[in-house]
Amino acid sequence: MAAITNGIPEKTIERLSEYRRTLLASHKQGITHIFSHVLAGIHGITAVQVRRDLMLIGFSSDTKKGYDVQVLIEYISRILDSETPMNIAVLGMGHLGQAITKYFNGKGLKLKITAAFDIDPEKVGRTIDGIPCYHMDTFETKAEELDLSMVVVSSPTKVAPSLVLPIINAGIRGVLNFTSTPLNFPQGIVVENYDITTLLEKVAYFVKEGDNNNG
Amino acid sequence: MAAITNGIPEKTIERLSEYRRTLLASHKQGITHIFSHVLAGIHGITAVQVRRDLMLIGFSSDTKKGYDVQVLIEYISRILDSETPMNIAVLGMGHLGQAITKYFNGKGLKLKITAAFDIDPEKVGRTIDGIPCYHMDTFETKAEELDLSMVVVSSPTKVAPSLVLPIINAGIRGVLNFTSTPLNFPQGIVVENYDITTLLEKVAYFVKEGDNNNG
Repeated sequence: MAAITNGIPEKTIERLSEYRRTLLASHKQGITHIFSHVLAGIHGITAVQVRRDLMLIGFSSDTKKGYDVQVLIEYISRILDSETPMNIAVLGMGHLGQAITKYFNGKGLKLKITAAFDIDPEKVGRTIDGIPCYHMDTFETKAEELDLSMVVVSSPTKVAPSLVLPIINAGIRGVLNFTSTPLNFPQGIVVENYDITTLLEKVAYFVKEGDNNNG
Repeated sequence: MAAITNGIPEKTIERLSEYRRTLLASHKQGITHIFSHVLAGIHGITAVQVRRDLMLIGFSSDTKKGYDVQVLIEYISRILDSETPMNIAVLGMGHLGQAITKYFNGKGLKLKITAAFDIDPEKVGRTIDGIPCYHMDTFETKAEELDLSMVVVSSPTKVAPSLVLPIINAGIRGVLNFTSTPLNFPQGIVVENYDITTLLEKVAYFVKEGDNNNG
């Protein structure tokens, strides 16, 4: 994935998404204003980083009372969200697929998981966690019918490579791949490969390094 | 999390973990040598990046036949792995906890998920996906007994903040948090907050930006 688009670094996009989630939770609790150092503290970063991120998107209405929570939510949303909602399909409705669906669809976001695909006869044709599950063989036609623009790949790892061609043929534009096989797509299709093993190995490495540095 | 430890950037650590997984799969298929550009192609990056990462860890035995797969696996493992295996516990054995356990423990890695904790009476006291599930109330004592050094937080988001103190008290050293609440810990405890919502929002943003740039 390109590290920078229109001058906003990938890491800033991640943090904007995280800030928004915190702001939405604060808003729900009736909090109207928040200081950059409070937002920073919640996310374990510095206030300078928060201010730099918001400056990058042209937001600078810091007052004595801090940022106006609602205004900032709207501002970040204009950056992150597309004008029309994007429909997402989950490819592989096992534990991971179900976890992601359940977790994600409760949030009331612009992004919605609207369909699942699997080959398990016990799942195909059923509604799971509120979304219909179709047979993977029908993916290319269903993708058009259901106006799908993104997929989450949560299939078994060995199945993942066989999904690349259907994803391309279906005109999918964004892929979030949780399997252990990195998937490559032609230009124009955004892909993020996120292997949970990598995340755990990274934490373990820094734990080990902490030991070496202290001991 | 500190971006750099001992001169190896966090992103390089992530890629080393990913290279190793590809190398292990190649080794299994009987492949003995691999060129940097092949490894790069699989991971969707440049050969220069691969060579730079391996140079950073002092590996430079590139030959006309490419890297020796087995030697490189051993080399990366010396960097990433600790000498003694680390035991990991999953806090919250719902769909996500089960997906992670099932997925991770099949890999034959040095890291092992050896216990789960939950409060659901239908799970506590049972063995799920090969690991015992204990009541969360017993976490602090069990952690010592079972020599746990890392946890995966896959509980409901609203429960997550209440897990911080038990995690600290139990002497846990690394935390991989998948809930929507960023968790902060005192220095000495490594934490990675990985919200799936952020990943999806990031992909969606770059899909949208691709549209704007092309249209």
